Amino acid sequence: MSIQAIVDLVAICAKKGVKNAILSPGSRCAPLTIAFARHPEITTRTISDERSAAFVALGMAQQLEEPVVLVCTSGSAALNYFPAIAEAYFQEAPLLILTADRPPEWIDQWDGQTIFQPEVYGKHVKKFFQFPDSFETNDQLWYAHRIVNEAINLSKSGPQGPIHINIPLREPFYPKKGEGLIPSSELHVFDQERGIKQLSENSLQRLQKSLTDFSRILIVPGQQKPNPSYQFALEQLIQKKNTVVVSDCISNLQVEGSITFHDHWLGNSSINEKLKPDLVITFGKSLISKSLKLFLRNQQVSHWHIQAHEGVKDTFQHLNKILDCEPAYFLNWLVENLPSQNKDYLESWQNFEKKVQEKLPTTLESTDFGEYPVLHKILPLIPTSSKIHLANSMAVRYVNFLGKRSQEIICNRGTSGIDGTNSTAVGCALTTSEFVTIITGDLAFFYDRNAFWNNYETPNLRIILLNNHAGGIFRLIEGPKEQPELEEYFETHQALTAKFLAEEHEFQYSFAKSFPELERALKDFYEPSSKPKILEIETESSKNAEILKSVKAEILNYLKNQ
Amino acid sequence: MSIQAIVDLVAICAKKGVKNAILSPGSRCAPLTIAFARHPEITTRTISDERSAAFVALGMAQQLEEPVVLVCTSGSAALNYFPAIAEAYFQEAPLLILTADRPPEWIDQWDGQTIFQPEVYGKHVKKFFQFPDSFETNDQLWYAHRIVNEAINLSKSGPQGPIHINIPLREPFYPKKGEGLIPSSELHVFDQERGIKQLSENSLQRLQKSLTDFSRILIVPGQQKPNPSYQFALEQLIQKKNTVVVSDCISNLQVEGSITFHDHWLGNSSINEKLKPDLVITFGKSLISKSLKLFLRNQQVSHWHIQAHEGVKDTFQHLNKILDCEPAYFLNWLVENLPSQNKDYLESWQNFEKKVQEKLPTTLESTDFGEYPVLHKILPLIPTSSKIHLANSMAVRYVNFLGKRSQEIICNRGTSGIDGTNSTAVGCALTTSEFVTIITGDLAFFYDRNAFWNNYETPNLRIILLNNHAGGIFRLIEGPKEQPELEEYFETHQALTAKFLAEEHEFQYSFAKSFPELERALKDFYEPSSKPKILEIETESSKNAEILKSVKAEILNYLKNQ
Repeated sequence: MSIQAIVDLVAICAKKGVKNAILSPGSRCAPLTIAFARHPEITTRTISDERSAAFVALGMAQQLEEPVVLVCTSGSAALNYFPAIAEAYFQEAPLLILTADRPPEWIDQWDGQTIFQPEVYGKHVKKFFQFPDSFETNDQLWYAHRIVNEAINLSKSGPQGPIHINIPLREPFYPKKGEGLIPSSELHVFDQERGIKQLSENSLQRLQKSLTDFSRILIVPGQQKPNPSYQFALEQLIQKKNTVVVSDCISNLQVEGSITFHDHWLGNSSINEKLKPDLVITFGKSLISKSLKLFLRNQQVSHWHIQAHEGVKDTFQHLNKILDCEPAYFLNWLVENLPSQNKDYLESWQNFEKKVQEKLPTTLESTDFGEYPVLHKILPLIPTSSKIHLANSMAVRYVNFLGKRSQEIICNRGTSGIDGTNSTAVGCALTTSEFVTIITGDLAFFYDRNAFWNNYETPNLRIILLNNHAGGIFRLIEGPKEQPELEEYFETHQALTAKFLAEEHEFQYSFAKSFPELERALKDFYEPSSKPKILEIETESSKNAEILKSVKAEILNYLKNQ
Repeated sequence: MSIQAIVDLVAICAKKGVKNAILSPGSRCAPLTIAFARHPEITTRTISDERSAAFVALGMAQQLEEPVVLVCTSGSAALNYFPAIAEAYFQEAPLLILTADRPPEWIDQWDGQTIFQPEVYGKHVKKFFQFPDSFETNDQLWYAHRIVNEAINLSKSGPQGPIHINIPLREPFYPKKGEGLIPSSELHVFDQERGIKQLSENSLQRLQKSLTDFSRILIVPGQQKPNPSYQFALEQLIQKKNTVVVSDCISNLQVEGSITFHDHWLGNSSINEKLKPDLVITFGKSLISKSLKLFLRNQQVSHWHIQAHEGVKDTFQHLNKILDCEPAYFLNWLVENLPSQNKDYLESWQNFEKKVQEKLPTTLESTDFGEYPVLHKILPLIPTSSKIHLANSMAVRYVNFLGKRSQEIICNRGTSGIDGTNSTAVGCALTTSEFVTIITGDLAFFYDRNAFWNNYETPNLRIILLNNHAGGIFRLIEGPKEQPELEEYFETHQALTAKFLAEEHEFQYSFAKSFPELERALKDFYEPSSKPKILEIETESSKNAEILKSVKAEILNYLKNQ
């Protein structure tokens, strides 16, 4: 009877539009494995390292914006999912995590592969459900159906997110040879039509009145998926209302007239003084730019945040209005209702932007070989319609220094870990025929090397590995570089190159440690291939630090002398 | 001031005998990193992949039976520790986990590397402490000191286990250049003298009376470290009292006259009938042998378990007496007080043991090439005084089929995961100059390949990799082998060999897929070397299944016809 409930679970998933499941091998989860594998409408893939499996599912869910199912056996398998689940929680990505478990009577009795699974992800899932472990009454089967419906609905609504169903299973785990898996005739399915939150006329009138107090409004979108409706509204706000829009690369907005080089000057207090806004309006999730974050924290100005669900953060410590509605709705309302802003204010931001745009390329073209100029050369060659996965630490920071991008930029900024970059990109590559480029440092790359340990082809994957044989970021931030422990305990020298990994997985591999080598390697990098390609770029950590410092100084000097 | 509390924390660790810390790189944890790295009495090592780092610490703690410290930065780093922490919890190994965290005001505010760290390991640590985040009063510093004392005492007492201290830290993280780290003058340190639990005279009299009811006592030690005092008592019980002692390889007892080949006959119901005990006495943790477990479950007999702390399991469903005392104490009491047992009963067990001992070698020597005969050839060549780490799934089962071993046998049977075998063995190898041999299947091996991604030398490591390019166990258990999903979803074919991994890490590598190749490869396998050695043995999953089945049948047939 528990197999019947599992068959029904899978049938409900399919009816509610679930299209993908990532399974990891195990015995306890066999009923789930078999029921998913046999369902004609669900694509199943099997990945042995659960840490990677969960990030692959996350990478798919980010693209599909639909829940992807994860299935694992009992015991520590579920724990290996945890880094990706926390990432999905803070990144608000829909996952449906199904962990097989022993039945309650065999928990904590020295039976193998048994831990305490109920609520094991704590606050890092939107909701936890314990699946029934016996089905003596029809109510129990109805309850099982209800759980699956609620789980999928919740994963997709409000802020999307991971939902965990723990499923105790007793033997037999396997259908008899040739036995069909037929869902119950009374399959209980309920959907959810998602509401769109707007503000009342009263609220809007109040806001309209408030807005007359401001003439130097700064709009700062946080991390989000590409969204044409935001983009259009923001362009209108800049053109028609002189609003300033400042966005990091992870906000995925290619808005004409917006500011994206802000990292080059916001560290400077005399410049900041001139750029002080009187109101900051934000939407979306986190920022990359630490100087932007500090700039906004240090300004004692009003901050409004637009978010249609609970859990608003006060990132800049001046939050004084939550706008409980859809950002697109409010931005469009602003286009109609915002009084025109101070044009000089917009122009001072745009002037800095223009200056960096002029100066940065020539500055970078005259530096020694290092990560920063290398990325400056590579980024324009990445196909326009493609996706870029950035590893945390320096990769995402460098790309943010380099301004607007036309590609979708993805980065695991929920927890900002280095633990699943490759796997997330592999998941992404499984959902698209466009190129998916990973830009990563060596620590993030080797940390998640099991991303490539599966049997699924991702010929559209391109990997730019910036190998400085260390966690180079520690040489770039204040503090550790002064310490005698820098090299051993912070940078953590590591000797590997990707050469063997490439051979092992039959990836195409090229290597560069000079500009001419880089140029040669890039020539056919985006030619189609049957296997992923790795371009490994070896640089020196101390040289990278020097370049970053001198470019920063040169740009800032140029800006100040204008 | 928070740096002072961290300096004190490390000083208290050292004063209480902590000798080893495994650090993972990060910024938030910098005060911990620096304070540990600078302490002259604590050996620190840094490992980037936290999943591996925690299993390395576990491998050290298993050997040292002293808490090993883990230090990681905030965010998902702590989650990557979790598989090893759950293993340590169920295996009762002492770990002191120190996770750096953002201070409470910055949790859940889109700041990078921030999750919900308090109590994140749930029931999988013995105790959780939140370190103070401000030190305005002396009480707070005293409280910080107290936490560290309690944590270390708890990790070592009762059942040993992992303790988690979450440590919120505010900037500055780094001492000024050249600034010394001096512990507070009033360092609060308290130790704990561990008690030894015995039973009262009244209890012993009652037990003595009860014991007269039994003449077919079976003693079954579970998983435990080698323990000479148990060994001596058990030998006395066999020799002087005709007690039957049945032990799996993970019980680490080389007791003369004990039974270790029980897996070969306990699946057979007609044999089991003759071997029915009237009392089962157990101590230690879990068993490997499923047939032994089922044999004990199916017998409606008394079961006494000796354990000097809470949390006794009822693994065989017939527990009727808990002996709340040290096993060595009670075994020694039995040596003096147990009435002599039925000699025929002992002899029937020993007769089966002897027959398997006679027949198994010749049977295995006449099979085709496969994992089972390969291990039969390899095990006798492993140096007597050394340590063997067995991976879960088939490796530990095969070794258990092959009887008594003189080496210490280690296997992560707390959660029975495949996720940390290599790293645990690396941790072990760091604590000893004896050889440490890993016997593993390919899934467990590649799952934890980052075990070798660190800068510490383990020339005493030897790896026997049984590569059948799949999770071969699924072909050996009933159920999955009947399913069309067997190969893709259960066995999970994987193509890798260890050749590239060996090159990458400069390990010595040899390969065998026949008996002559194996013999050649083994010749100098245990010669000293400057790097670990890998012997990769390629077999066919289906052939392994055939061999196991035919050997089992041949042995059982031989036993039945005697």
